[in-house]
Amino acid sequence: MMGIRVAMTKTNASNFFEDFSLGQKIVHATPRTVTAGDQALHTALYGSRFAVQSSDEFAKAIGYPRSPLDDLLVFNIVFGKTVPDISLNAIANLGYAECVFLKAVYPGDTLSAQSEVIGLKENSNGKTGTVYVRSRGANQHGEDVLSFVRWVMVRKRDEKSAPPVAHVPELLKVANVKTEFPRVDTAKWNFELSGSPDGFDDYVIGEKIDHLDGVTVEEAEHQLATRLYQNTARVHFNQFAEVSGRFGRRLVYGGHVISLARALSFNGLANAFHIAGINAGRHAAPLFAGGTVFAWSEIVDKAPLPERDDVGALHIVTRATRDLPCSKFPTEDGTPEKPGVILELDYWALIPR
Amino acid sequence: MMGIRVAMTKTNASNFFEDFSLGQKIVHATPRTVTAGDQALHTALYGSRFAVQSSDEFAKAIGYPRSPLDDLLVFNIVFGKTVPDISLNAIANLGYAECVFLKAVYPGDTLSAQSEVIGLKENSNGKTGTVYVRSRGANQHGEDVLSFVRWVMVRKRDEKSAPPVAHVPELLKVANVKTEFPRVDTAKWNFELSGSPDGFDDYVIGEKIDHLDGVTVEEAEHQLATRLYQNTARVHFNQFAEVSGRFGRRLVYGGHVISLARALSFNGLANAFHIAGINAGRHAAPLFAGGTVFAWSEIVDKAPLPERDDVGALHIVTRATRDLPCSKFPTEDGTPEKPGVILELDYWALIPR
Amino acid sequence: MMGIRVAMTKTNASNFFEDFSLGQKIVHATPRTVTAGDQALHTALYGSRFAVQSSDEFAKAIGYPRSPLDDLLVFNIVFGKTVPDISLNAIANLGYAECVFLKAVYPGDTLSAQSEVIGLKENSNGKTGTVYVRSRGANQHGEDVLSFVRWVMVRKRDEKSAPPVAHVPELLKVANVKTEFPRVDTAKWNFELSGSPDGFDDYVIGEKIDHLDGVTVEEAEHQLATRLYQNTARVHFNQFAEVSGRFGRRLVYGGHVISLARALSFNGLANAFHIAGINAGRHAAPLFAGGTVFAWSEIVDKAPLPERDDVGALHIVTRATRDLPCSKFPTEDGTPEKPGVILELDYWALIPR
Repeated sequence: MMGIRVAMTKTNASNFFEDFSLGQKIVHATPRTVTAGDQALHTALYGSRFAVQSSDEFAKAIGYPRSPLDDLLVFNIVFGKTVPDISLNAIANLGYAECVFLKAVYPGDTLSAQSEVIGLKENSNGKTGTVYVRSRGANQHGEDVLSFVRWVMVRKRDEKSAPPVAHVPELLKVANVKTEFPRVDTAKWNFELSGSPDGFDDYVIGEKIDHLDGVTVEEAEHQLATRLYQNTARVHFNQFAEVSGRFGRRLVYGGHVISLARALSFNGLANAFHIAGINAGRHAAPLFAGGTVFAWSEIVDKAPLPERDDVGALHIVTRATRDLPCSKFPTEDGTPEKPGVILELDYWALIPR
Repeated sequence: MMGIRVAMTKTNASNFFEDFSLGQKIVHATPRTVTAGDQALHTALYGSRFAVQSSDEFAKAIGYPRSPLDDLLVFNIVFGKTVPDISLNAIANLGYAECVFLKAVYPGDTLSAQSEVIGLKENSNGKTGTVYVRSRGANQHGEDVLSFVRWVMVRKRDEKSAPPVAHVPELLKVANVKTEFPRVDTAKWNFELSGSPDGFDDYVIGEKIDHLDGVTVEEAEHQLATRLYQNTARVHFNQFAEVSGRFGRRLVYGGHVISLARALSFNGLANAFHIAGINAGRHAAPLFAGGTVFAWSEIVDKAPLPERDDVGALHIVTRATRDLPCSKFPTEDGTPEKPGVILELDYWALIPR
Repeated sequence: MMGIRVAMTKTNASNFFEDFSLGQKIVHATPRTVTAGDQALHTALYGSRFAVQSSDEFAKAIGYPRSPLDDLLVFNIVFGKTVPDISLNAIANLGYAECVFLKAVYPGDTLSAQSEVIGLKENSNGKTGTVYVRSRGANQHGEDVLSFVRWVMVRKRDEKSAPPVAHVPELLKVANVKTEFPRVDTAKWNFELSGSPDGFDDYVIGEKIDHLDGVTVEEAEHQLATRLYQNTARVHFNQFAEVSGRFGRRLVYGGHVISLARALSFNGLANAFHIAGINAGRHAAPLFAGGTVFAWSEIVDKAPLPERDDVGALHIVTRATRDLPCSKFPTEDGTPEKPGVILELDYWALIPR
């Protein structure tokens, strides 16, 4: 008996809605040194071909010390650290906002993550509530490399517990891009090696790009990816439990879909080499193993960057679909259970001017 | 004809029971440099989150030169080297004992393996026999990093060959832990970053811990793992042959189950950062792809370590199950073909005092 | 409307037959720094055990600065770079010739690729044509590490376009081996650690070797491999499209089969540590996930190497089969839809004298 009681205290059952308080700061466990091994796995999982991240020589030519890690590898690892504390008991990941990528991350760097609770609102059913957190990923020098807000719907442990004072943060619709990525020597940017002649000036607001290719996702692939990120969310791994769950099967981690869409976008956005910020990300429908992911992008805005004449920013909405080629640029049609749009990712990408 | 004859001598068909002799020493092929790439794959395969192995910064803070490789990655690689000589013709892996982890292994180290035959006993059927070997893994400096005994049932090539003098070694029920892992500066151990506040003094003999999560194993995953270890045992890879085999399908390598159970045990044993020794390991039932692995642990003993006041040792029995959550702490029930306990691993883990 | 038009110009739809011209030089996109992470994935995907590539210590003992990357990892990465420009619209990969491996590639090297069109011949149907290219892979010092010829059948964009002057290059049946791999100190070659006592003098022309083992291929595995090579050929990834395709399912990349066969060949050719050249490679039948690959090799010639008394070259034909063990050394039987030979690889391997 005692063993059982003690065990309950040893195992981390994560936080419920009433465990969060406004202003609370959470240090997430398991700092992580990222290496060339992680980057190789990222390539094997997504087939990404952006030259700056693929070639130390290309990166050095334009002024980087070496190839940085893929931005979404960094995002997914930092996100993964927040899961055991923030969203293990979440019913739904409701949204992202104000995601900014601040500094390049290189093999050998160590990432750690912290979050602050910036909003709380109990739902009218008294059973759940929405928690808003701003999470930051830092490197071993204590410099923030990434910051983002997300909000999740979390169960209450005890439905009778009193609700907190509701506070919903005001969030920017479009993130302030304030990149400290290295300055690029654009004269040294080799457009043959990068895979496309198109730079900042070649894209037009309103332009739509079908990324053409489709890639089928296997159970082993999304599980390998999600574990690489040390993301412990249970719906991705446990077929025994999911058989009795909402979908009857394991759900592919949303970050895996984002990374797939980004890799597919190379065909049409080859020089859009860094993600500077994510304004919003919405998983419109679930993805399961066996589904084939396609993607298309729309250029919704363009912006020069303050104090940078080397690169500009493209404001892009990339939509990923499931079992639906994108030659007709599909948008969400309100039937999530049918093949259709599964992701809308609204972000800023850097591209040489 | 000649081609065939010569070919028979070129191909290594491994050893049969009568090929082994007491005191025989075997140098195993294919030394292996382990790298950050192997560690990244280990993370992707198991999702392990122990901070010392995950973060160079955490490791350096407590006195290590950098993150050591996961102990079971080292074990599985050394074990894999022994397979072509010891167990390729084995009918069964019968047991392990006296496994001790001696020195930390770092990316860049090169592992090699040797074995000594320490016991032989022909079975009464005259068709098979048990071979006991002590295998050692060494680094590039010739220092042993790992040593373990295992015994396997091996076929005789010729049933008429005379049996050897039977010799069954006496083996310790509990391995002598004699770690030379680096000394830990426990004042620098950050219990927020490590994922749990619980150290040596917080665990109680008799305590049981349900590790909660379940993870479903895919064919691609266990094959990738077993090949990473350069383990050539045929039952893991060859569906064409296994269709006509005992189970009708490929068998998941037992070391894969051990590594999964260890990774799951983070939730409840987050600070138990090194395996110091394995007293016994028993694969109570097979695992196949599609099965979901759960685990729970029992603290069966605690011990201070001679000449070390920085860390103590927890004597743990971790049981892994197949398609059976562990909230009721299941033990083996004698029905291996039903869902149930598939692994009992009796080991010592180091934890800060 | 405009968006669609612009999009068509952004997306790379690759080249059609009339886009190629004799003598044309093509710089392929996405240079690639290869790392220990790639080598770890290569091990996990194929289980390769050649000691020189597995152990820095073994490699240093014989005179290498460290372990070189596996030759076929280099080949597959360079090949992958050529796909978006050469064979994305290919109906068939018809053959390889004159493949020579020139210099060892080490973790940290950056590979880039260029091709020259050396032959063109429109087919009599007026719909397709054969394009011959010589592709070269270079390291960051501008030194060629690999060169090979391949020819592919490519669709015409416009069937009415005029055919080019036909030119079919004369190709050597047997590649000129001219390796610049490091010289080997054969006295330091440890035949226990390498896994076999057999060197150059032990092999006999006409000798046949059954490599014994079989390995079943999973969808996740060949997709991970093909993406690791940044190979974008669509038939390997898109189940949604392939359901309506020729085979009704995804096709395993031919280079994956070559790498599997090479890894299997360790059992019988353990000291044949480098591929010096590939004379011809033919994919006799497709491989799909779920198939089990076996292999056997025939020694068809032996040759000393000019100016090298340390290593000799074995001229080998390795055949890989699908769901067919190789104890009877099967050759192609003209029934590609049945289990049978799927690959004939004619190559030179280096082995210590």
